[in-house]
Amino acid sequence: MAKRVAIVGAGVSGLASIKCCLEEGLEPTCFERSDDLGGLWRFTEHVEEGRASLYKSVVSNSCKEMSCYSDFPFPEDYPNYVPNSQFLDYLKMYADRFDLLKCIQFKTTVFSITKCQDFNVSGQWEVVTLHEGKQESAIFDAVMVCTGFLTNPHLPLGCFPGIKTFKGQYFHSRQYKHPDIFKDKRVLVVGMGNSGTDIAVEASHVAKKVFLSTTGGAWVISRVFDSGYPWDMVFTTRFQNFIRNSLPTPIVTWLVAKKMNSWFNHANYGLVPKDRIQLKEPVLNDELPGRIITGKVFIRPSIKEVKENSVVFGNAHNTPSEEPIDVIVFATGYTFAFPFLDESVVKVEDGQASLYKYIFPAHLQKPTLAVIGLIKPLGSMLPTGETQARYTVQVFKGVIKLPPTSVMIKEVNERKENKHNGLLAFFLFFFFYFSTQRNILFKEYKLHAFHKYNFRNIVILPTIPFLPSTLPPHFFLPLTPRKWKGARNAIMTQWDRTFKVTKTRIVQESSSPFESLLKLFAVLALLVSVFLIFL
Amino acid sequence: MAKRVAIVGAGVSGLASIKCCLEEGLEPTCFERSDDLGGLWRFTEHVEEGRASLYKSVVSNSCKEMSCYSDFPFPEDYPNYVPNSQFLDYLKMYADRFDLLKCIQFKTTVFSITKCQDFNVSGQWEVVTLHEGKQESAIFDAVMVCTGFLTNPHLPLGCFPGIKTFKGQYFHSRQYKHPDIFKDKRVLVVGMGNSGTDIAVEASHVAKKVFLSTTGGAWVISRVFDSGYPWDMVFTTRFQNFIRNSLPTPIVTWLVAKKMNSWFNHANYGLVPKDRIQLKEPVLNDELPGRIITGKVFIRPSIKEVKENSVVFGNAHNTPSEEPIDVIVFATGYTFAFPFLDESVVKVEDGQASLYKYIFPAHLQKPTLAVIGLIKPLGSMLPTGETQARYTVQVFKGVIKLPPTSVMIKEVNERKENKHNGLLAFFLFFFFYFSTQRNILFKEYKLHAFHKYNFRNIVILPTIPFLPSTLPPHFFLPLTPRKWKGARNAIMTQWDRTFKVTKTRIVQESSSPFESLLKLFAVLALLVSVFLIFL
Repeated sequence: MAKRVAIVGAGVSGLASIKCCLEEGLEPTCFERSDDLGGLWRFTEHVEEGRASLYKSVVSNSCKEMSCYSDFPFPEDYPNYVPNSQFLDYLKMYADRFDLLKCIQFKTTVFSITKCQDFNVSGQWEVVTLHEGKQESAIFDAVMVCTGFLTNPHLPLGCFPGIKTFKGQYFHSRQYKHPDIFKDKRVLVVGMGNSGTDIAVEASHVAKKVFLSTTGGAWVISRVFDSGYPWDMVFTTRFQNFIRNSLPTPIVTWLVAKKMNSWFNHANYGLVPKDRIQLKEPVLNDELPGRIITGKVFIRPSIKEVKENSVVFGNAHNTPSEEPIDVIVFATGYTFAFPFLDESVVKVEDGQASLYKYIFPAHLQKPTLAVIGLIKPLGSMLPTGETQARYTVQVFKGVIKLPPTSVMIKEVNERKENKHNGLLAFFLFFFFYFSTQRNILFKEYKLHAFHKYNFRNIVILPTIPFLPSTLPPHFFLPLTPRKWKGARNAIMTQWDRTFKVTKTRIVQESSSPFESLLKLFAVLALLVSVFLIFL
Repeated sequence: MAKRVAIVGAGVSGLASIKCCLEEGLEPTCFERSDDLGGLWRFTEHVEEGRASLYKSVVSNSCKEMSCYSDFPFPEDYPNYVPNSQFLDYLKMYADRFDLLKCIQFKTTVFSITKCQDFNVSGQWEVVTLHEGKQESAIFDAVMVCTGFLTNPHLPLGCFPGIKTFKGQYFHSRQYKHPDIFKDKRVLVVGMGNSGTDIAVEASHVAKKVFLSTTGGAWVISRVFDSGYPWDMVFTTRFQNFIRNSLPTPIVTWLVAKKMNSWFNHANYGLVPKDRIQLKEPVLNDELPGRIITGKVFIRPSIKEVKENSVVFGNAHNTPSEEPIDVIVFATGYTFAFPFLDESVVKVEDGQASLYKYIFPAHLQKPTLAVIGLIKPLGSMLPTGETQARYTVQVFKGVIKLPPTSVMIKEVNERKENKHNGLLAFFLFFFFYFSTQRNILFKEYKLHAFHKYNFRNIVILPTIPFLPSTLPPHFFLPLTPRKWKGARNAIMTQWDRTFKVTKTRIVQESSSPFESLLKLFAVLALLVSVFLIFL
């Protein structure tokens, strides 16, 4: 009998989980609290309880070739970085194409997930749901929790002395939808993550004055990277990863700083990250330096005190320390929680859950509960969640065996400790940052069918080191039990697809004869030098 | 008796002209049609007849160190690129500081300027003005026309077959004020100059879809240039100019293309200029590639036909040739005219006036009429106009003598012909582009007092080649009869001033020891190679 799997949430990870279950002969039932699929990618004008909330202008941070599900590329006419409404359309096409809707129960909130009495033997769970006021209960062989980590705003008001006396408006970035509310106001955005930076830049088009306060600073990079290529297609070739991973840490730090400063010198804009060793994920924004140099956004250090109508900054430099402010937006991030799970199943402490390979609660007697998508890859959640789901399904089926509890707990604890160890966190950063995200996922989640390599694909092998790591969404497919005939073609045409949407005017792409001449001359000079040296 | 000078227009060139006249003991009267000074820099919600019209978001294209009057730097807390409202404030401060208002008659339209009967002897002009319905006439010894070249929209509707059948809205970019009008519309902007690109980018924040149609393409560069420095401070050091001017043209073309493509590859975005030899002035925009890569702005070739509710593009590539359109903005530029002058004084043909050194009608018997600011420098109009005014005043005073009419006419004709000669226009481009704009102006308008060099400033000399050409606003002052004590300090502190406004958070600016080590190693390797080669 096929195993029944309960899936919580129909966002990007939930959809991938449904598909993986169906492919492997499991029987998924997905419970979605809202009335439609798409999770965070579904923009609504009003914030919904329990669901991540987008602002109107959100555009994906990883390009379409890096963000797709493994066997379902984005439509050719999609832009490289996909605006949220089109992203949602893509998810709907995916659900349509693989007939996932039939497995989703909308407007159904998961109330509780508890171990069955015979859990130690059966590994089964009792899932209690609420649908239109009606409570239901059902037994499942396994559970995949796909609720994400962007639903619970983190708003540490205690860190901002005087905030209670502030007479202006303040709110968490989760509440933000449109820039109109900032019209002619003096706006302060606190926190320089992707949302904070986006909001500050957007506000600056309509506000009177915009300040962006950051304690730690950040590296800011543009989607438009080296020569205009999507940043994530250029930054992460296996060859570059290899080079970077082989060099000593301080040299890599220096190279990274150099690269990060190539667009603009972060020192001149007051943005250099405080702790350059414990590197933070870079912020993606195409406009920030342009807004700073035209006096539309002002960078400020951390808040010292909030007054009735103004804010005092600590350590102000070249600038008054107090500024009149009308609106404060706290882009201070999110925490996550599993209200339907008992703490004995998954405990969240310090913003971390103790999950083996970011998926399995290490101490459970049976590996029948998995958390999918509770990982923050530098790239897209789609292929990451899908890979996790593929791995998980193999575990559910018993094809992959997890190590003993003690080994798993040891691994989890080691990872937790690393969080507080600058240098190791730094390596962890590079682990995620520079290597192929999915390459890692491979290593991490070593898929069962890895050895069943499809040799017809071997022609691609020699070019792999120099291709962007984008290829894995399609590339890792031949390595898994489920094959997709389109994979090879998708890999071979990824560069063409990338610029197909932007090359909409015929231009002359001549390379100058002087460039060739110059290069020839350089090679000759090099040869002569070598010759003379060894003469 | 002091010469009486009529100045038409109180914009940037008019203000500089008043000041130069006052300084040299002339008696200026400035006639300004509107009720305030500032010319194009004064934003109003409604377009005013006879005055250039700004959109709300205009920011200067050259940085504050390059844009100031020679003896009046921008306030230290101004951003590097100055938004129009602050620019206007600066002009008002300038007028205040040098007491220029007393010479301006507002709400006074110049109706006609005609030669006096004894013009061949006196060189005098009769100026007829209208003030609140009252006509007045006065005799002036000289005239400075400072009406600019951005007042008369150029809208060649004949070039767009079918435009009469178009049921949507269309207008010239001169009419554009705010992006709100584009909300949820499908917008087409025609023409890829600075305005067209700005409008397309701005529209893309609120419109449903935005197309930018360009026949010739353009190089697009960002204000945020190499490592984040203002583009015009990095691009134009005398050393770089020297290097570029010494190399053969094709190599320079190649170098320019390389530089222009360093931000993003224009071929991949369908933007490469058609005629790379006859280089156009580059477009300054900080956002365009980011808007293209996120699918917010779509580049299209030239219009083939306009239909009732759509537009057909010629030579469409990778994309449908017809697109539904609701609004068309024609950013097709401007022409200029002097309605108050007889054609026999200044004739405008083919968008060109026959002016010796861009200032003096070559055929007049007396050089007592000058056009100031009818030049399109790549940089700012302020120092350019000021330099022209200084030169002109010396001519008016008889200190500088113009060559015979025949020589002047020959020079003017040669310049006109060059316009149609690709290669020479190209040189002309570099002439303006890469050399110090003001350096050229020096050569062009060789100031009287050039030999009175102030030797106390000689300490600056050795660094000049490596300083941005920004310094001339202050630097050329010591070379003129009017000295400004602040010049030296202004020159020496320009880099500090540049980033004072953006370095508003204390950051660690450590250079890595590995960088120094690496450089040391490179130098050693070089020495060894040279040693071995010459062994």
